[in-house]
Amino acid sequence: MNDRRREPQNVSLADIAAKAGVSVSTVSRIANGALRRASPATVEKVQRLIAEFGYSPNPVGRSLRGGESRLIAMLAPNLDNPAMAAIAASTEAALRDAGYVMILCDTHDEPDLQDEYLRAMRSRFVEGFVLVSAVASRELEAAVGRADPIVFVNRRSPYGGLAFVGIDNRQAGADAADHLIACGARRPAAVHPEDLSLTIRDRVEGFIERFEARTPGARVRRFSGAGKNHLDAGYSAASALGGKEDWPDAVLCPSDLMAYGLYKAASERGVRIPDDCIPIGIDGNALNAWIAPWLSSVSVPYSDFGARIVDCLKGVKTGLDVGEVLLEHRLVLKPS
Amino acid sequence: MNDRRREPQNVSLADIAAKAGVSVSTVSRIANGALRRASPATVEKVQRLIAEFGYSPNPVGRSLRGGESRLIAMLAPNLDNPAMAAIAASTEAALRDAGYVMILCDTHDEPDLQDEYLRAMRSRFVEGFVLVSAVASRELEAAVGRADPIVFVNRRSPYGGLAFVGIDNRQAGADAADHLIACGARRPAAVHPEDLSLTIRDRVEGFIERFEARTPGARVRRFSGAGKNHLDAGYSAASALGGKEDWPDAVLCPSDLMAYGLYKAASERGVRIPDDCIPIGIDGNALNAWIAPWLSSVSVPYSDFGARIVDCLKGVKTGLDVGEVLLEHRLVLKPS
Repeated sequence: MNDRRREPQNVSLADIAAKAGVSVSTVSRIANGALRRASPATVEKVQRLIAEFGYSPNPVGRSLRGGESRLIAMLAPNLDNPAMAAIAASTEAALRDAGYVMILCDTHDEPDLQDEYLRAMRSRFVEGFVLVSAVASRELEAAVGRADPIVFVNRRSPYGGLAFVGIDNRQAGADAADHLIACGARRPAAVHPEDLSLTIRDRVEGFIERFEARTPGARVRRFSGAGKNHLDAGYSAASALGGKEDWPDAVLCPSDLMAYGLYKAASERGVRIPDDCIPIGIDGNALNAWIAPWLSSVSVPYSDFGARIVDCLKGVKTGLDVGEVLLEHRLVLKPS
Repeated sequence: MNDRRREPQNVSLADIAAKAGVSVSTVSRIANGALRRASPATVEKVQRLIAEFGYSPNPVGRSLRGGESRLIAMLAPNLDNPAMAAIAASTEAALRDAGYVMILCDTHDEPDLQDEYLRAMRSRFVEGFVLVSAVASRELEAAVGRADPIVFVNRRSPYGGLAFVGIDNRQAGADAADHLIACGARRPAAVHPEDLSLTIRDRVEGFIERFEARTPGARVRRFSGAGKNHLDAGYSAASALGGKEDWPDAVLCPSDLMAYGLYKAASERGVRIPDDCIPIGIDGNALNAWIAPWLSSVSVPYSDFGARIVDCLKGVKTGLDVGEVLLEHRLVLKPS
């Protein structure tokens, strides 16, 4: 079956319609991702046949909104966040390989701007959306309702289980805890931004749960920090850790940028990193090896995201339920 | 006159054609940036009248290639270079304010990919191009020949004096020399990538010229480094500086990423930065204040680029000769 799917046969909409006992236009709608107008049983049957025959819709008829634009819009919260830039770069390359052109839109993590870009892109006939760290918003809810082709990245859809590419953030937090336990940490803390996204919450909770489960009597302190970005939030949260004597012996920073913020706060207080306090980040920023050799980090394989995002997008556009793709993170130790 | 230009009057193509004594279609072509089919004298006369009356072409007729797409393509060499990300972020915001949508394309600094994107974007009816650190390529030469609306950023056009937004790179190098002289440097070096762009060459030459002019008998050593990016090139060039005793007492790094590369090479040799060797970068990367507190840098105002790029693009699209816009750089000292 898998081999058949990989080598699509010369099957038409009409063949699938005949097999399913439904109209050609019903198959067309389902193949193009519009799942609302047919019954769940019909959708399920048609999707199964599409998968079985490896049918892929005629590109010219592919877009719901007229013609083939070959444009895909990526909406991301902050282009100048290195993690976002890494996801954008790998997705751009993968889309180009697949014959698409990526339009990149910076939502600044704001629902209003996300809505503005969703509207603008829709009116420009994009064939699909990649939403990195999406926030809940009116237009997004409408797009999900229309079954527009969307792949969510980093943060899951706020409107239920749709296509998602990311890592197991809870597990990443747990792995960070295992590392700090192996380093001998006994009085750890976790810092995070005041506005807690689902991604960050999972990392922090996974860390705390694992650390406390493996270390009887230990209690992980939590500190949140304000700021327009993770650098500021890390600095602000670390500034709340107290005087030099009160500092924890290890800190989970749920992003490397937060660890950079913590580093500055530590320097200002005479807390030596990593001698007095061992931080662990999550991201695996490429700059760590160059100018932050004090930082171990759970590395997220952002450069692998692009190819998986494009796979999911292709699946979603043919009406398949692609579900979640969780990529492997791995611990990258600081140079010893 | 300036006030008139800022408050456009209700002037038509026909008014300008009558004043200039040419046909309406000639004015239309010139207003839309197609300057090849009229004589230089006519172009000059019509452009002067357009500027004087503040005429701006009807948006619907604006694109040479049919219809109004409101799409602008930015081609940049590397999205994961923080300087590129900063330029992209500020340009995206300025274009959005002006009612445009930016398509971002990563050329990876390769002529073939630059050509592929120029073709692809042209076929998608973009209304203008922003070329960041462009390289010479066949399609670019053709686009310049057609007088397509293009603004060059960071690196000037390889095909003569067109619209450009950047800094005075020679002066930035000279200012870096003044700083190191003030720090007491006597045996300086300059590092740079093996492939020397015009931007980097100007910075390095401006540095050497100023240092040697102000310090009788001094000779600035030059070291080039290989690598796919400035981190690697900085590391590789610094590795050629010799043993700890041979290291210079100060180094010009023509980008902050090169300084990060140098920092790692110095650490591996026991050269203390900045005690044994004072580096100075050019960029003003926002991360310096957080995790590279040893680095002073000539800061390039990337966040101001966007608004100026959009101004130039508007000018170019109305056929104006906007020339060069040089923004002010400034020295940002490391925390003392």
